[in-house]
Amino acid sequence: MNGAEALLQTLIDSGVEVCFANPGTSEMQLVAAIDKIPGMRPVLGLFEGVVTGAADGYGRMADKPAATLLHLGSGFSNGMANLHNARRAGTPIVNIVGDHATYHLPLDAPLTSDVPGHIALTSNWNRTSASHTAMAQDGAEAVAASMTGRSANLIVPADFAWTEGAEPAAPVAAAKPEVVSEEVIAKIGEALKNSDNACLFMGDKALREDGLKAAARIAATGIRVISEVFSSRVQRGRGRPNIERLPYFAEFAADALKDIKDMVLVGTMNPVSFFAYPNKPSTLWAENCNITTLANKQQDQIAALEALADYLGAPAYEAQPETPLPEIPEGPMTAETVGAVIANHLPENAIVSDEAQTSGAFSYAYYDGAAPHDWLMLTGGAIGQGLPVAMGAALACPDRKVVNLQADGSAMYTNQALWSMAREDLDVCVVLYNNSSYAILNIEFMNVGVDAPGERAQSMLSLQNPGLDWVKLAEGMGVKATRATSTSEFEEQFAAAMKEKGPRLIEVVL
Amino acid sequence: MNGAEALLQTLIDSGVEVCFANPGTSEMQLVAAIDKIPGMRPVLGLFEGVVTGAADGYGRMADKPAATLLHLGSGFSNGMANLHNARRAGTPIVNIVGDHATYHLPLDAPLTSDVPGHIALTSNWNRTSASHTAMAQDGAEAVAASMTGRSANLIVPADFAWTEGAEPAAPVAAAKPEVVSEEVIAKIGEALKNSDNACLFMGDKALREDGLKAAARIAATGIRVISEVFSSRVQRGRGRPNIERLPYFAEFAADALKDIKDMVLVGTMNPVSFFAYPNKPSTLWAENCNITTLANKQQDQIAALEALADYLGAPAYEAQPETPLPEIPEGPMTAETVGAVIANHLPENAIVSDEAQTSGAFSYAYYDGAAPHDWLMLTGGAIGQGLPVAMGAALACPDRKVVNLQADGSAMYTNQALWSMAREDLDVCVVLYNNSSYAILNIEFMNVGVDAPGERAQSMLSLQNPGLDWVKLAEGMGVKATRATSTSEFEEQFAAAMKEKGPRLIEVVL
Repeated sequence: MNGAEALLQTLIDSGVEVCFANPGTSEMQLVAAIDKIPGMRPVLGLFEGVVTGAADGYGRMADKPAATLLHLGSGFSNGMANLHNARRAGTPIVNIVGDHATYHLPLDAPLTSDVPGHIALTSNWNRTSASHTAMAQDGAEAVAASMTGRSANLIVPADFAWTEGAEPAAPVAAAKPEVVSEEVIAKIGEALKNSDNACLFMGDKALREDGLKAAARIAATGIRVISEVFSSRVQRGRGRPNIERLPYFAEFAADALKDIKDMVLVGTMNPVSFFAYPNKPSTLWAENCNITTLANKQQDQIAALEALADYLGAPAYEAQPETPLPEIPEGPMTAETVGAVIANHLPENAIVSDEAQTSGAFSYAYYDGAAPHDWLMLTGGAIGQGLPVAMGAALACPDRKVVNLQADGSAMYTNQALWSMAREDLDVCVVLYNNSSYAILNIEFMNVGVDAPGERAQSMLSLQNPGLDWVKLAEGMGVKATRATSTSEFEEQFAAAMKEKGPRLIEVVL
Repeated sequence: MNGAEALLQTLIDSGVEVCFANPGTSEMQLVAAIDKIPGMRPVLGLFEGVVTGAADGYGRMADKPAATLLHLGSGFSNGMANLHNARRAGTPIVNIVGDHATYHLPLDAPLTSDVPGHIALTSNWNRTSASHTAMAQDGAEAVAASMTGRSANLIVPADFAWTEGAEPAAPVAAAKPEVVSEEVIAKIGEALKNSDNACLFMGDKALREDGLKAAARIAATGIRVISEVFSSRVQRGRGRPNIERLPYFAEFAADALKDIKDMVLVGTMNPVSFFAYPNKPSTLWAENCNITTLANKQQDQIAALEALADYLGAPAYEAQPETPLPEIPEGPMTAETVGAVIANHLPENAIVSDEAQTSGAFSYAYYDGAAPHDWLMLTGGAIGQGLPVAMGAALACPDRKVVNLQADGSAMYTNQALWSMAREDLDVCVVLYNNSSYAILNIEFMNVGVDAPGERAQSMLSLQNPGLDWVKLAEGMGVKATRATSTSEFEEQFAAAMKEKGPRLIEVVL
């Protein structure tokens, strides 16, 4: 077999089942290999930001990588923003990036660019295959490397892909998460016992159900449990421990943490503000706060939480009192009334892809009482992630309903994902909050210390003139769509959507 | 004034009139400066690929830079593909890239990435402002640097932007293109006199009207004149010398050049194939061909052509015989019948943004007899350039009609440009060739040596299931749109569009 076929067979043998792709000429051998060898589902995205964002959503839900197929430096750069988000989420992804044939590269043909320079910006696992016979082993190692929570980037020169005489490689075992030592557990345990104001500050795997249950045991000993603002995947809803979430804006976050004297990090970093603002704090902890790390992202966070709970002599986990579902208010439709409807109608075991931005800010807590679900967030702040993550999650979990809470400005970035949802008949309901603006930027405009925007500034913060018609955009890409202008209209449409399978968009006109 | 205001005033004083922007929090001070200081037209793009592609189109037509406003590494990476194209086109652009405040950067907040690493991939003029008082001078130097045909990338930390006490800087004069020496003219002139099969191989400024006229004088002495495949801007049509264009596919290109013994480069590089293919040549010149450079992109190509014509004792330029307009064929609509209609109805002094890909391949020569026009091409092969380049060209030349010949697959990449065309009421007519496929890849699939695509491969090369409805997509972004299913329908719609101002899309169903 040729290099491409050996690589593809190895990826399949290593457990990779889905390949999100936007291939070009340099990847045609890999396309041919997918055609020839059964076992890999190819999913076309009509822009690379869709491809990488979908791989992020898939990896978060499958806890294993999808592959992507990307076309040289320019194709890769189109996918970099969502690889940035995936890096912040710690998502396993294997990116296969075609490059020119080795002998063609020095000729500086029009599409030539520094592909190794591109990939190095997104990961610390980067490799260019050295020969057609090396490609398979490179692929096996890439899959294993990705399993520690990162993109593994493999550049494949076109001539190696088409050269015959390669063989598949055996799968490579992934490194297991490091176990946190008893010494660290004891040291942190003692500090917590002696603290009169301590918290766990959690992200990553600590926010899976078992991590939250272990944290709830620790909370029962009088310690606050707080999640980072933007997490890769939180398991929430009825029957699960719901925890405090750090607010987004710096002054509110600093206020929430101002009395904490001992902060223990689990799967996250020191809390810092998203942006700097004139005369506002960038670091959000109190000056006298002592910060220690229980477990980082490469360590077994759930086991560490359980060991710490045991060390503290915490009681066994007890089911929390149920949070009531929010009432659906009368009166005009707002982002919050829409949130209340969704929380009430969310089906069992749904997946929520949340890129609602300002439209989701005040309704997050509503879902504490909803049916159990997984909540996926915009981890890296590079907008255009919600639609593709929903698409990838739906491919990873075909039996679960995916609900995408989606801001309009962010949706435009990777609107092409709607087409892939239609193509693959994915069970995604997009709730498109159309507030005709980059609403967050209107707030940020004031936060950086300037007055209300005038005409020229307003033109850069508004999505009006003309307004976007999301029903037409969705239908133009083959997705059934409706528009809701009142809470009751929305409730009717959303409840119906939850009873049907397949892609669907509801435009909420705010 | 603060750093942002000093920078903005300097850009305005340096002749920059338009700022294509997709700003975020780190650029809010620059947005505020644009609001406060008159003289800069801000144009919002709903994705950064639109922003940078529009700056490319603007710079090609204005022969001076637009500014862009981009948001940290991720915003920049979204615009990198079209900056790659702009680099290949040699377009002047000034990119202003916001970054975190200097004291915030080490905290590794979620949107933090290696911004200097990003910008370095797209240009050889890259700088991070060192203080709020340095920003203005940096801006003046960036404008001057861009005028040698490149992106000048300036990173502006947010805290410098908001710090008071800065002053505007005086404009910096741009370097003039180097004049080619008499020795080089004489040496090449002698070689051409002694050659029995020579050609000029031309790109860049050599393809402007005056360059083509000088080349036509040289052609009159028995020397072939050939243009590169993908050029930034060719001045074509009635009354102008129309020249041979090198074919795209390697075997045809090599065949076209096989007898050339002396090739003289003007504003371009050695002809190489776009991609490598098994058992096909990557270099397109004959083995015994002697290649010399008359003028590179940093040199005055038009003056060099005129000097060479004089050296060769070439006659004065004489108007060429007129190329007849193509007849509009009867029968089913094809990409070629559409091309014939456009060539016949193209208004005087139009600008054509050509990203038609396979749909334009066979009708390029039809336009030799059309009204005089400028033809802008996809220079770097990173698709998603045609719509934004049309948008930027329309802003640079508000009194000229812009016609965008646009392939469907490429259009999806930066479809958001349609909204900006509507917002700015730009005089652009998009001819959207909907062939429901990445047609070029079906050819490339066979070119790399594999047989006809099977089901899984076909799914990655086709845009069907579902088909894209471009009328709905355009209307969803506020652009008037119609669909043509026959040549006569298209002719009626296109002729009407040429008589109206404002944005318009015609979907051609192939």
